[in-house]
Amino acid sequence: MLDRIPNKEDIIGAAGIIKPYVNRTPVLTSATFNKRYNSELYFKCENFQKVGAFKSRGAVHALLSIPEPDRINGVCTHSSGNHAQALARAAGLFGVPAYIVMPENSPQVKIDAVRNYGGRITFCKPNLEAREATLKEVQKQTGAIEVHPYDNYDIIAGQATAAKELLEEVPDLDMVLCPVGGGGLLAGTALAVQYFSTNRAKVIACEPDGADDAFRSFQKGKIVPSVSPHTIADGLLTSLGKRNFPIIQDYVMEIVTVSDASIIEAMRLIYERIKIVIEPSSAVPLAAIAEQKIAVSGKKTGVIISGGNVDLKKLPF
Amino acid sequence: MLDRIPNKEDIIGAAGIIKPYVNRTPVLTSATFNKRYNSELYFKCENFQKVGAFKSRGAVHALLSIPEPDRINGVCTHSSGNHAQALARAAGLFGVPAYIVMPENSPQVKIDAVRNYGGRITFCKPNLEAREATLKEVQKQTGAIEVHPYDNYDIIAGQATAAKELLEEVPDLDMVLCPVGGGGLLAGTALAVQYFSTNRAKVIACEPDGADDAFRSFQKGKIVPSVSPHTIADGLLTSLGKRNFPIIQDYVMEIVTVSDASIIEAMRLIYERIKIVIEPSSAVPLAAIAEQKIAVSGKKTGVIISGGNVDLKKLPF
Repeated sequence: MLDRIPNKEDIIGAAGIIKPYVNRTPVLTSATFNKRYNSELYFKCENFQKVGAFKSRGAVHALLSIPEPDRINGVCTHSSGNHAQALARAAGLFGVPAYIVMPENSPQVKIDAVRNYGGRITFCKPNLEAREATLKEVQKQTGAIEVHPYDNYDIIAGQATAAKELLEEVPDLDMVLCPVGGGGLLAGTALAVQYFSTNRAKVIACEPDGADDAFRSFQKGKIVPSVSPHTIADGLLTSLGKRNFPIIQDYVMEIVTVSDASIIEAMRLIYERIKIVIEPSSAVPLAAIAEQKIAVSGKKTGVIISGGNVDLKKLPF
Repeated sequence: MLDRIPNKEDIIGAAGIIKPYVNRTPVLTSATFNKRYNSELYFKCENFQKVGAFKSRGAVHALLSIPEPDRINGVCTHSSGNHAQALARAAGLFGVPAYIVMPENSPQVKIDAVRNYGGRITFCKPNLEAREATLKEVQKQTGAIEVHPYDNYDIIAGQATAAKELLEEVPDLDMVLCPVGGGGLLAGTALAVQYFSTNRAKVIACEPDGADDAFRSFQKGKIVPSVSPHTIADGLLTSLGKRNFPIIQDYVMEIVTVSDASIIEAMRLIYERIKIVIEPSSAVPLAAIAEQKIAVSGKKTGVIISGGNVDLKKLPF
């Protein structure tokens, strides 16, 4: 279990550890987008990852980083999203119990998904205090070890493997664009680019206007938590983690924000042109390109597509 | 220009000719589907093909099979679907004019797509006689050579390259499932499987109940044209071509039909689980598996996903 910022060897090690249990996802391109933005865009498609999101990488890595005797009582987390499914699946692969604290108003489809992967759910009131208190109680009763969705160095090292794979296919990217919520994917991406880019690629984070705590934290030089964030990109509502922020400060060049209207339009374009199903969070980087917040013209640009778990009945177009 | 059924060398040749101009599309799998159907399913994803459908393979091959002096006056076809776009694109790549006859009630998005690829459109009344008469007139005026969407051996050889690629990745498939409309993709698939399968894979064609002319033709041993076909799988409304049918008779083991309700459900499952955008026609083989019309249990099964051009505003779920 890492107690410091992952170094190059840690991320190479994480990639080796998780390899049998996750997908090596494809990198897709679109002639239409390349022409439209005069750029070479490379989309790293984590919507094709196990459980439909990059979260599987960190979850498998964090689980296997816990010494075997210590994980015998299980792992636990509070999450209603992709991390809950990813942790339940990862634990299930190794016969480890996974205790998931979920708000009682979670959508049935998410409850079913966690159960389907063998997760044991404890419901709580839908607020952060109740979630944390319930998680403490579950830990006390079970002896399970908490695996935080992003504020955890093993998670960060796991998420870093997506950008590592992207750079194996396109080593000389000029920049890599990544959405930011809690900062697990972004911190991992920033480290991987630092260690594996052959062209000193710049990392630019992309965030919704309505959940711009990372942007504000980056400007102020200290963590500014989200207060009632609101955006269609429901994977990006969380505030930055304290382990994530210093990595982002050091290795991310810029954070840009975009409107929900742009996110919806970018999402539609990705469905239409790249022919993939993504969740709104995944469309945020393309929205930033479309809003001309990032100058991609003439550049080789990597884009991390974070996941594809979306309610098809509620597509915003 | 081929005037006989393509042989093995013809298809190897077609693959080489079109390689620089089309995508080698990915083969995707789903642990959920494999578990559910106790099969190894391999989806060959032509939704990621140029212009979003397998049609690009045949169009490029047919165009380049016309001797250069003969194509100077252009190519022409009547089509309102993917073939029109694919032919317009293919012609545009080589500076050849493409004349497309389209029904005057074609959706604007399809008209725009053909124009976007440089196609020159002539509108006609929305019936087969008007389409054929208008095409003859266009040919007379321009000297363009007709490239039929499926009843053409060069088209068949081009479409065959999708299954050839699939078999390069999974040579020992037990069966290959393929939707059938006019029979260009199916005839090509059947030939490729005959020539390149290492395990004598069986080819099974899948067709909507509401457009089952191929099923009925196969039963009767002669072409039975479609009469007012009706299905959500709008790429499969056409009747079998006369060059396609004998190939299908010789190399396809069985044709099964499925309901539109099953097609819609299979389409939803593919969006949800494989995370790809497909058109309804592409969901017909999975619908046949779900309806238990095809016994895939314990088998290695290839599935041709034909394309991804769908109006996102009209998704049936």
